[in-house]
Amino acid sequence: MQILVTNDDGILAPGLTALAQAMVKLGEVTVLAPEKNWSISGHVKTLHKPLRLQKVSLTNDLLAYASDGSPSDCVALALLGALETKFDLVISGVNPNANIGHDVTYSGTVTAAMEACIARLPAVAFSLNSPENFQGELNYETAALVARRIVSKVIDHGLPEGVLLNVNIPYGSLDQVKGYKVTRQGLRIYRDALDKRYDPRGKPYYWIGGKPPIGVAAEGTDYGVLSEGYVSITPLQLDLTAFTALKEIEKWDLTD
Amino acid sequence: MQILVTNDDGILAPGLTALAQAMVKLGEVTVLAPEKNWSISGHVKTLHKPLRLQKVSLTNDLLAYASDGSPSDCVALALLGALETKFDLVISGVNPNANIGHDVTYSGTVTAAMEACIARLPAVAFSLNSPENFQGELNYETAALVARRIVSKVIDHGLPEGVLLNVNIPYGSLDQVKGYKVTRQGLRIYRDALDKRYDPRGKPYYWIGGKPPIGVAAEGTDYGVLSEGYVSITPLQLDLTAFTALKEIEKWDLTD
Repeated sequence: MQILVTNDDGILAPGLTALAQAMVKLGEVTVLAPEKNWSISGHVKTLHKPLRLQKVSLTNDLLAYASDGSPSDCVALALLGALETKFDLVISGVNPNANIGHDVTYSGTVTAAMEACIARLPAVAFSLNSPENFQGELNYETAALVARRIVSKVIDHGLPEGVLLNVNIPYGSLDQVKGYKVTRQGLRIYRDALDKRYDPRGKPYYWIGGKPPIGVAAEGTDYGVLSEGYVSITPLQLDLTAFTALKEIEKWDLTD
Repeated sequence: MQILVTNDDGILAPGLTALAQAMVKLGEVTVLAPEKNWSISGHVKTLHKPLRLQKVSLTNDLLAYASDGSPSDCVALALLGALETKFDLVISGVNPNANIGHDVTYSGTVTAAMEACIARLPAVAFSLNSPENFQGELNYETAALVARRIVSKVIDHGLPEGVLLNVNIPYGSLDQVKGYKVTRQGLRIYRDALDKRYDPRGKPYYWIGGKPPIGVAAEGTDYGVLSEGYVSITPLQLDLTAFTALKEIEKWDLTD
């Protein structure tokens, strides 16, 4: 089992090392992650410039590479053969914040897994529901253990074609985790606000600021079970068709 | 009716001006588009740096601004009030190439419309199915007329909540267009291949190359109807839950 591990926070993020080390018991692990942070950068394919790869020294037990591409570029490079390894599984994370609701199309953690899914490989994205305004060093121990358990099941059962998993893990010790629930994607509520400022030359510039997003804790959703202390496992697909809207739009008379 | 027009090819792209001018008959039009090309750049929210806006001179009849942010940043800036206009509708395009199948999470044209959808505004992305390897200047006349017809229907009927439209338009004259079909998202087949080269200092670099993607022309899909000469109107949603996979994954015993 050849396992590729990537993330969107960059090669030096502690969540990446914790995840990669947790995978070592399940197969041969290769890390290929971006040099820099690509949070909230979406699903990118870099075609307008070439990409670089370099072998890096992460920890003694890990084979690791960094690239100047995005998280999804890292997956593309690896799956198209840049490392001369044929991968069986792609794991992304652990992101230091939850990726729930509408976060999934923005998230580099999730879009890296999407890239693998499009290439028909099983893929799982892991994120940690860390407390808001947490200061100091996050503990990834529980997340790493949960990730290993879930990935071992993915290896046992496989994933349905065209499906990736988006996993969110509560913050705390393993015995605080209430269990595992398979969920649907919930609703995020973004509370962005514009912060207009003026530079020393009197020209305006704009920060996208505001308050951190919240979630709607509806039953059976990612955010709902997460806020009750469960690990949320959301199967996602790349068919975005709004099937319930087809009939309504078919009624429009577009010929007049 | 205040209409925001954006794109992912940048403020100088001819498809943007054609689309904006077609919208003038339907309401007050403001263009806010990226300074540079953001094709295949995904759903981006720029939080790590501030964004700039500048008024630009596009054509005499259009109020236009450019930003150093992504297509979705342009939408966010406008909807968060940077232009002090309350928009009713967001239109994106016209992209010079089709956005079908799995293209939708990569596409800046579509993710700009997603950004509006998350902010609960009706949004439509328009793309032109131009011939492969087309050389010379694309003609956006048909696309502009089709876009105006569809947007006038969106104004009449509204869109169901959480739904955006992804529209792909055949290339050719208006009388060659066979009609309009409401479709589901089809399958893209990417044919990417790695092109490894060496720089003048002997170090390797990698282009994501290969052949252009093709589509599976299945009945009722975006690519299927497009290749028969119809305009494809695909309603998309941002709930990516793979509902059919929920039961299968619930069977996994994650407690052992």
